[in-house]
Amino acid sequence: MTIREVASFAAGEWVAPGQGARDIASAVTGEVIASAGNSALDAQAMLDHARGTGGPALRKLTFHDRARMLKALAQYLDRHKQVLYDLSFDTGATQADHLIDIDGGIGTLFVFASKGRREMPDGHVYLDGEVEQLSRGGTFLGQHVCTPLQGVGVHINAYNFPVWGMLEKLAPTILAGVPAIVKPATSTCYVTEACVRLMLEADILPAGAVQLVAGGLGDMLDRLTCQDVVSFTGSAETALKLRSAPHILENSVRFVAEQDSLNASVLGPDVDPDSPEFDLFVKEVCREMTAKAGQKCTAIRRIIAPEDRVEAVIEAVSARLGKTTIGDPRKETTRMGALVSASQKRDVLDKVAVLEREAERVHGDPEDFTVDGADAGKGAFLPPMLFHCADPDRARRIHDTEAFGPVSTVMGYRDLDHAMALANRGEGSLVTSVITHDGDVARQAVLGAGAYHGRIYLNDRTSMKESTGHGSPLPHMVHGGPGRAGGGEELGGVRGVTHYMQRTAVQGSPDHLAAIAGQWVPGAAEVTGPAHPFTRRFGELSIGETLHTEAREVTLADIEHFAEFTGDTFYAHMDAKAAERNPFFPGRVAHGYLLISFAAGLFVEPAEGPVLANTGLDNLRFMKPVEPGDSVKVRLTVKKKTPRTEDYGEVRWHVTMTNQDDERVAEYDLLTMNAY
Amino acid sequence: MTIREVASFAAGEWVAPGQGARDIASAVTGEVIASAGNSALDAQAMLDHARGTGGPALRKLTFHDRARMLKALAQYLDRHKQVLYDLSFDTGATQADHLIDIDGGIGTLFVFASKGRREMPDGHVYLDGEVEQLSRGGTFLGQHVCTPLQGVGVHINAYNFPVWGMLEKLAPTILAGVPAIVKPATSTCYVTEACVRLMLEADILPAGAVQLVAGGLGDMLDRLTCQDVVSFTGSAETALKLRSAPHILENSVRFVAEQDSLNASVLGPDVDPDSPEFDLFVKEVCREMTAKAGQKCTAIRRIIAPEDRVEAVIEAVSARLGKTTIGDPRKETTRMGALVSASQKRDVLDKVAVLEREAERVHGDPEDFTVDGADAGKGAFLPPMLFHCADPDRARRIHDTEAFGPVSTVMGYRDLDHAMALANRGEGSLVTSVITHDGDVARQAVLGAGAYHGRIYLNDRTSMKESTGHGSPLPHMVHGGPGRAGGGEELGGVRGVTHYMQRTAVQGSPDHLAAIAGQWVPGAAEVTGPAHPFTRRFGELSIGETLHTEAREVTLADIEHFAEFTGDTFYAHMDAKAAERNPFFPGRVAHGYLLISFAAGLFVEPAEGPVLANTGLDNLRFMKPVEPGDSVKVRLTVKKKTPRTEDYGEVRWHVTMTNQDDERVAEYDLLTMNAY
Repeated sequence: MTIREVASFAAGEWVAPGQGARDIASAVTGEVIASAGNSALDAQAMLDHARGTGGPALRKLTFHDRARMLKALAQYLDRHKQVLYDLSFDTGATQADHLIDIDGGIGTLFVFASKGRREMPDGHVYLDGEVEQLSRGGTFLGQHVCTPLQGVGVHINAYNFPVWGMLEKLAPTILAGVPAIVKPATSTCYVTEACVRLMLEADILPAGAVQLVAGGLGDMLDRLTCQDVVSFTGSAETALKLRSAPHILENSVRFVAEQDSLNASVLGPDVDPDSPEFDLFVKEVCREMTAKAGQKCTAIRRIIAPEDRVEAVIEAVSARLGKTTIGDPRKETTRMGALVSASQKRDVLDKVAVLEREAERVHGDPEDFTVDGADAGKGAFLPPMLFHCADPDRARRIHDTEAFGPVSTVMGYRDLDHAMALANRGEGSLVTSVITHDGDVARQAVLGAGAYHGRIYLNDRTSMKESTGHGSPLPHMVHGGPGRAGGGEELGGVRGVTHYMQRTAVQGSPDHLAAIAGQWVPGAAEVTGPAHPFTRRFGELSIGETLHTEAREVTLADIEHFAEFTGDTFYAHMDAKAAERNPFFPGRVAHGYLLISFAAGLFVEPAEGPVLANTGLDNLRFMKPVEPGDSVKVRLTVKKKTPRTEDYGEVRWHVTMTNQDDERVAEYDLLTMNAY
Repeated sequence: MTIREVASFAAGEWVAPGQGARDIASAVTGEVIASAGNSALDAQAMLDHARGTGGPALRKLTFHDRARMLKALAQYLDRHKQVLYDLSFDTGATQADHLIDIDGGIGTLFVFASKGRREMPDGHVYLDGEVEQLSRGGTFLGQHVCTPLQGVGVHINAYNFPVWGMLEKLAPTILAGVPAIVKPATSTCYVTEACVRLMLEADILPAGAVQLVAGGLGDMLDRLTCQDVVSFTGSAETALKLRSAPHILENSVRFVAEQDSLNASVLGPDVDPDSPEFDLFVKEVCREMTAKAGQKCTAIRRIIAPEDRVEAVIEAVSARLGKTTIGDPRKETTRMGALVSASQKRDVLDKVAVLEREAERVHGDPEDFTVDGADAGKGAFLPPMLFHCADPDRARRIHDTEAFGPVSTVMGYRDLDHAMALANRGEGSLVTSVITHDGDVARQAVLGAGAYHGRIYLNDRTSMKESTGHGSPLPHMVHGGPGRAGGGEELGGVRGVTHYMQRTAVQGSPDHLAAIAGQWVPGAAEVTGPAHPFTRRFGELSIGETLHTEAREVTLADIEHFAEFTGDTFYAHMDAKAAERNPFFPGRVAHGYLLISFAAGLFVEPAEGPVLANTGLDNLRFMKPVEPGDSVKVRLTVKKKTPRTEDYGEVRWHVTMTNQDDERVAEYDLLTMNAY
């Protein structure tokens, strides 16, 4: 067997292993299969390449440009993923595990690509929240904006997800407009390297956007500034060492850590052994214990059940675990593969010894189990092991010792408060699940335990068919947790993108804000176009382009006619006495729907043209009642333009309706699709 | 003169100065006026009191309850602020400075009170963002929620704002539902203590919500957990010491720092000496140099002007600074008071000596200036000092040395990129201002410098009358900055409140999410009420209460009649051929406004009742065209209820319109005001 030389990709060049290279063994056979590391890598040159070449190239692109790149990248990887599957078996992972790591990673790219297009602008500045009114007259306003950091994302990943671990950090970083330097854990870096080679072959990202360090980072972290981000996944011990570095602290270098976590799963007090939620609970527990041989930062380490159902839980979980076929991950019948390495196996057994001081092993014997199709003496195999702790209040180590393998401990609780107190004894975790069919239990769980957990996963008979699993961080939702879990946060859609951006509070005049945001703000200059804006194509319309309509009187006859026609005979329109008793109205008033219908009548250009459809309306507020005899007129302004398909884009119009005294009657955003 | 004994308020008791107490001198006379500190304070007892008494009491309240408390507190302090004015003169502050510190602090309470009522729910869980669709069938959804941390906010404040510094941290903390332990800087803690006494007199906050440490914190920081937050304002040196503590790092204790900052103000390339922006620039610079005698973390330390306008800037700033009357802050004619202490004055002079290596002093002589009404030899007085640096590219210390007094350095730039590069040489600041009347300059400034600055303040002739000043952090906008500024963030409305909450990604069924959020989610159970929901008062309506209407056919005659009546004769409604050419429509279709008008006709209850008004409509999306002959029906569901005044509350209704095939035609939220 040839030994694979795992190269680094530094400053645009592949650099083979050299001085300080380390051997990497197969998790399944124990044989050396690869070699990685080169302590002669030039950290400063890599940072310079990212900051000087990758960053500027990415920042020139818009969020939509970058989102399109992520989509293309995901499509390319999806077509070529077999290469990664083939390699990954040697990490101990089964084909089902590959779906989590490889397909899960590609799926994350797709979600960020989609969110980038749907939830971010086709521009360079992301707006965080609404305009803040900082002055009575409206000449001085505030707007929070996010712009890309001008540095590098240094991604330090764990061994358990060589593909997902890279892509879940890379997607938001690239979407933000920031280049990345990826440092996978050495023991599985050959899979990451293969994925980076595919990404470079795809030739989608600009030069300098991604670099790879197979091996150690050298002194790279001592060269970072306030424009860089370290995003770390791994052990608490390593995280602490890195984040304590004086250079990191002195320069307030952003440091995101996702580390140890004693995740819990709670069986709701409402769940009896014969209810569908009980089976669901058992299945989720067993899946989390055995997927990736329990080497998941989100795996269930603590199983918290009502005291009178502990026995039933132990019995059901043990029975199901007993059916787990352990062996060569390449075999289709294998349900659980190997741990990543012999040293990882030793570490798990050391931690198991710690747990045994407080808990009794009730299932699984590391000295006596069957391995199918591989040599148990050479591969890093372990059986799933279940513990029972009889006194979880007094116990300490079951709440702070993470055996990073197929290991979990069952404990009993007296009432929901007690269950939450036990879950919180982990002092911060990535995820706690609560299997319950009772909304009150769900609510109490979130109120009691939310502050200690980055994610709370609920499941019941309604959601179980579509639920995504206790252990799966989704790109839509934040992943991370307080305290022991590292205090960090990743993913969560656009939230994860902003980790690579600076939020800046911008204050200024409406014209200042409009220029920065690339969208019109009330008070900013109006532009007069050469023709009715409905006759102008998407590309021709300017931000701020404005139509002022004629005025139209609203008569009592209009109101009565509208009421009769639509059936909306609400008393404020029809009954003068009742309307006068109402705190909002002087007497009978026009329907809000009548007003916005008349508004359309005033601003619409009837002839066929580039406006294809009115697709929606946002933030409509009625500000002053319109009485019979009042007249209304409309100002229609191009607020924002967003490309949507090959053929058309969305125009967001700001609409202000005023009365004969120029008082605002109604205000809203109108959405249309316009041909390019 | 009696010496004021500044007490701590610990675990519900006032504790007088004792062991380890320190003398505090007047900034104006140098005489000892107070004594503070007691090293026998029991840090654990204070934490226990906050966690065991204050936290649970605050968490029982809703966001609206807590917002009302903040408003009452602000009103009480506003009535009693004279006490604080009287005391504050001895810190060296003038009456104008009191407006920033004392009135600014009270104003911050008012803004958080208002935002808490308007932007947060009358409940216990704050929803961050929208529901995430995690499944095709909609039985499994995601929602980010924020719940209060179950620990303590430890607030370590700087000497320069003894009132604002406390209140700007306290307001978001209390609103979040978290108790605080306030530790002001000793040199001005007598003002903070007086303010805490007023707050306790007001008897508005529950026991344990606020405690005060006058003097040192002892080992309190070594007793914090992942549920606590340290929010620090002060020197970079102290911040680094505190945040480097192994206990803080090991437990991922949240640590927010706001520290040194070399803030810049840039004169736009478009601004000539005879334009209104030039005067504005000079005024802002002089105000920032002299307010609080330059002891503001946001003060302008670097004045960046086009090279050919440097001389004019020096001349104009010097002329204006020359008119600054320095002296006894109690005198109405005084424009600038004293620095806080003799040691602060020495520190400024030390830093000035550093600056003098790279820059030339062009205005102000610390050896020769007039002090009005006070003894220059005893009080900590200094004159404003302006420097000019001829080579800002080569210079280093002008970009990293913060002389925390009335000191600033002028430097020239070649073009806007150069100006931004100079601003960014501060390696992270709280605020940079750009005085420009050109939107492109504003945009380029944000793109070039946003990543380095927590706030960018723009100003011009349009906004100058209402603008709030380069140096004023507003409660609406985030305050903080990357790198040298500490990497932290405070304020920013609800953003600042979430610093004391945990964001948790909740996943579950629609019923799970509805129970947690206290609002209806599509897919959650519908409740059938005893009568038409429009006949039910605010308090009677249940979340999820639903009305299903009859169906109504939409005829071609309806469409033509509506077009004629409203004037909306858009071609998609009137011209069959043109409509067929449109990519969205099969042929002539009903107006969106017709549909929502008919919807109202279907669900409205006409008789006088508890529904007072339709106040608005949100997120309307038209999903499928309605053709002549189709029929539509409506589902109207109570989504959310928010109390608004003494008499009525807002009901947010979810409206879904479907056609004869049960396909969704339109969806939106409708807002009404309903009597209690």
